[in-house]
Amino acid sequence: LIALGDIARHLGGTLDGDDTLPIARVRGIEQAGAGEIAVVSDPRFTVLIETSHAAALVVASTCGSGRKNLIRVDDPKRALAALITLFKPVELLPAGVEAGAQVAPTARLGARVFVAAGAHIGDDVILGDDVCVFANAVIGAGTVLGDGCVIHPNVTIYPRTTTVGRRVVIHAGTVIGSDGFGYTPNGDGANGTIEKVPHLGRVEIEDDVEIGANCTIDRATLEVTRIGAGTKIDNLVQIGHNSEIGKNVILVAQAGVSGSVTIGDGAMIAGQAGIADHVKVGPGVLVGAQAGVHADAPSGQWLGTPALPRDRAGRMFAVMPHLPDYRERVRALESKVEALQKLLDRLLEGRDVVDHKPS
Amino acid sequence: LIALGDIARHLGGTLDGDDTLPIARVRGIEQAGAGEIAVVSDPRFTVLIETSHAAALVVASTCGSGRKNLIRVDDPKRALAALITLFKPVELLPAGVEAGAQVAPTARLGARVFVAAGAHIGDDVILGDDVCVFANAVIGAGTVLGDGCVIHPNVTIYPRTTTVGRRVVIHAGTVIGSDGFGYTPNGDGANGTIEKVPHLGRVEIEDDVEIGANCTIDRATLEVTRIGAGTKIDNLVQIGHNSEIGKNVILVAQAGVSGSVTIGDGAMIAGQAGIADHVKVGPGVLVGAQAGVHADAPSGQWLGTPALPRDRAGRMFAVMPHLPDYRERVRALESKVEALQKLLDRLLEGRDVVDHKPS
Amino acid sequence: LIALGDIARHLGGTLDGDDTLPIARVRGIEQAGAGEIAVVSDPRFTVLIETSHAAALVVASTCGSGRKNLIRVDDPKRALAALITLFKPVELLPAGVEAGAQVAPTARLGARVFVAAGAHIGDDVILGDDVCVFANAVIGAGTVLGDGCVIHPNVTIYPRTTTVGRRVVIHAGTVIGSDGFGYTPNGDGANGTIEKVPHLGRVEIEDDVEIGANCTIDRATLEVTRIGAGTKIDNLVQIGHNSEIGKNVILVAQAGVSGSVTIGDGAMIAGQAGIADHVKVGPGVLVGAQAGVHADAPSGQWLGTPALPRDRAGRMFAVMPHLPDYRERVRALESKVEALQKLLDRLLEGRDVVDHKPS
Repeated sequence: LIALGDIARHLGGTLDGDDTLPIARVRGIEQAGAGEIAVVSDPRFTVLIETSHAAALVVASTCGSGRKNLIRVDDPKRALAALITLFKPVELLPAGVEAGAQVAPTARLGARVFVAAGAHIGDDVILGDDVCVFANAVIGAGTVLGDGCVIHPNVTIYPRTTTVGRRVVIHAGTVIGSDGFGYTPNGDGANGTIEKVPHLGRVEIEDDVEIGANCTIDRATLEVTRIGAGTKIDNLVQIGHNSEIGKNVILVAQAGVSGSVTIGDGAMIAGQAGIADHVKVGPGVLVGAQAGVHADAPSGQWLGTPALPRDRAGRMFAVMPHLPDYRERVRALESKVEALQKLLDRLLEGRDVVDHKPS
Repeated sequence: LIALGDIARHLGGTLDGDDTLPIARVRGIEQAGAGEIAVVSDPRFTVLIETSHAAALVVASTCGSGRKNLIRVDDPKRALAALITLFKPVELLPAGVEAGAQVAPTARLGARVFVAAGAHIGDDVILGDDVCVFANAVIGAGTVLGDGCVIHPNVTIYPRTTTVGRRVVIHAGTVIGSDGFGYTPNGDGANGTIEKVPHLGRVEIEDDVEIGANCTIDRATLEVTRIGAGTKIDNLVQIGHNSEIGKNVILVAQAGVSGSVTIGDGAMIAGQAGIADHVKVGPGVLVGAQAGVHADAPSGQWLGTPALPRDRAGRMFAVMPHLPDYRERVRALESKVEALQKLLDRLLEGRDVVDHKPS
Repeated sequence: LIALGDIARHLGGTLDGDDTLPIARVRGIEQAGAGEIAVVSDPRFTVLIETSHAAALVVASTCGSGRKNLIRVDDPKRALAALITLFKPVELLPAGVEAGAQVAPTARLGARVFVAAGAHIGDDVILGDDVCVFANAVIGAGTVLGDGCVIHPNVTIYPRTTTVGRRVVIHAGTVIGSDGFGYTPNGDGANGTIEKVPHLGRVEIEDDVEIGANCTIDRATLEVTRIGAGTKIDNLVQIGHNSEIGKNVILVAQAGVSGSVTIGDGAMIAGQAGIADHVKVGPGVLVGAQAGVHADAPSGQWLGTPALPRDRAGRMFAVMPHLPDYRERVRALESKVEALQKLLDRLLEGRDVVDHKPS
């Protein structure tokens, strides 16, 4: 139990209410009740403030409600994160190598490392301090994982491919360092063969990256596939060989990055979007959901397939549903113009008469 | 071997043919031969009835064929399912905990539970009767699996996240309960940091759900990500945090459901479709393949990106391939109108003459 | 170290430079320096030839550069593959069954087979010579893997479903043989139930197929889901039940093939494209990235959703961004035509006057 006043001070907010009210947990605004606090982090929930059964609410500093027990903060979204951290049970990370873990004798393990039963740590692997490798993850020979990395169950990192920075989280089922998709056709279609381009390159994942579940990140052909520091990757995302993802990039679920793509710092690639190979996406660029980027997108926001700058795409999307109307209007125009033409033709015949008469 | 008459009775159909004919197995209509039965469950295969080498066929009750050994049924698709079940070799589910399984001492296992070698059952896990956990699946601490659940190999369920009802099947490689994709940017783009919103919420999967291979279902931020009873999920589907999927929903392969989405009972989301965050999809709604639903879709069918009601989308899709023609027709209209304008201008000059002359 | 002249002879190319120059490795043209060779396999890198610090370069035979130490070859892309193979450290594949591997007594293992700790080899499995099954892969009962197959970590092959030819590589996390997505609704929406169509069919993967990471390939309902010889599948690809993929087909990342699809030899399905169920894609057909193929595509190239032949789609895509202009042009035409109509109407009134006057 944490006193409401202490919560307000922790969030750097202003409390209008009972400083001593004991709070047991943080919940959603629709579910919170006695002894519980909720955060109105989304303007669409403002309408629920007056009717919420929550013992207390965290709201934006601009909130005009007169409800009891409000904490006003500048940034409710960040307050939510802080509040969850405050109430989240501390997970004591396990440490030690469980019986049933496979750890190569040449692997070097830092302090307080945990390796679960069923996990594999290959030859020459280096694990920094406080690294956790959970059940059945397979860390191939030569992999380097920096301090504080967390590798969830059933992850695979291919041997001799991958260097990971500090505090990187890789969620379950993700595969890192598999061969890039490179082939050269040899002869024609079904009669020829398709020759594999072998892959020698690496994957480098910088500090503070988080990678979702069941993603795939391929090793480079010769050099490096890079994920920049602070970048966050959602589930089921594909990163092709030789691509360079900048720092603090957001890649939403099921996005696909082809080979040799460059994505600038702070860019955001929304869900199910695709970036064609060799394309450069500039820093801070926003690529919309399901967009298909086939040419360089140096700045701004891009939507649609093939992707267009947001303004153009927005105008295009606004017209598209009305295309059947425009088809009708074009048809109507054609009829009218033809009628006008006929009228004019008859008139011209008449004018000839008129013109000739006076002469 | 099962006598054809017994099969007909089992299916509740009418046999026109040899009641005693022994049938060994069910096959596709193009492959079936002597001793084999096939089902014409798709109207496109009706043309194959007369030439099929199958010993017997199951057809719709409306079928007009005079072929020997036809079983007529009301619903051939359901007859196919019943027939496969009839001929499918009974799989005796294994039971017992194999050597090499990791089962926490605090886990509680029901009757006839099977845990394969390499599977992990965490602290405080509760497995109902007849639960099967196959090789290398990782069932995190505190997970509850109801009676008759089947967890295929290499599945991961995160600790303290997930409650599963009865008779739920989770196919290989699927990840349940990983953190939702929630962050708050702190400062600007590459120069700032991206702060993780920690996740406290759960996943609840109700009775009779089937989840395909390599799917990802994220835990909620505070409350629950729910998969309603009877819902069927294909492979490589993403379900974001806080989403509520109704009962008997169909989600086809590679569909993506963002965060805080609501999908009503009996809805169908086709392959590679995407639902944007906070969107409500109504009960019984059909979302077409590759559609992108960016706003609430309360009823009916929705196609395209951004998604439109089927009728509007259908008319739009019908016009789109003809856009180059319409471009030409608009150009032609512009030329014609300009020519008419000129003609009319000259005529008006002439008319002035004509008009002035009489004055 | 390999002498440059030997490299030239190995590639079947013509050396213009120092035959004895020792080369240590192959690198990217932007990264290569002293003792390193690079390949200009992409015309966009031609501009880098003069400024590259590489000790030697492999270029197209048509290259006009006068730089020192050029090897000219007919096909630089194939030269790159050959060069990487030349310099790639020979990986001695492991052999033997590691302690901690689960191998059923009824499984039959060929010569030089490797089974890693944590891998499962089920009853009656047959592994050809030189097969490698890496850590935590699960090979279900009755699976057949031909000579030289490589199964990467955490792969799952379902029991009694799959036959694999020779030299097939299956990357980490891929799931083969899970049930196809087939159901028959029983009653109405949320009030009814959804009955599963059980699956009896198989998966057949022919020689020299490579399957990427975290893919899913479903078993057929009754017969076979087939992947033809030489076909290459990228990461996160879905292949539905009963589909028949031809020989030497290329399926790029996140592509989705529904059920009962036929794809002809030598076809190429680009990233995130989807093929609807029962559709036939002809041999050699190219389906563009994110395209949605809803009807048979017998030949040529197909783009867009719903997919159109490339020429039509290209013309459509060229018009689409200009739709707002065309909307304005249609509006302008409507105004002009209305003005013309009015003018003409007035003129006609006038003409009546004119006409009447002389009478």
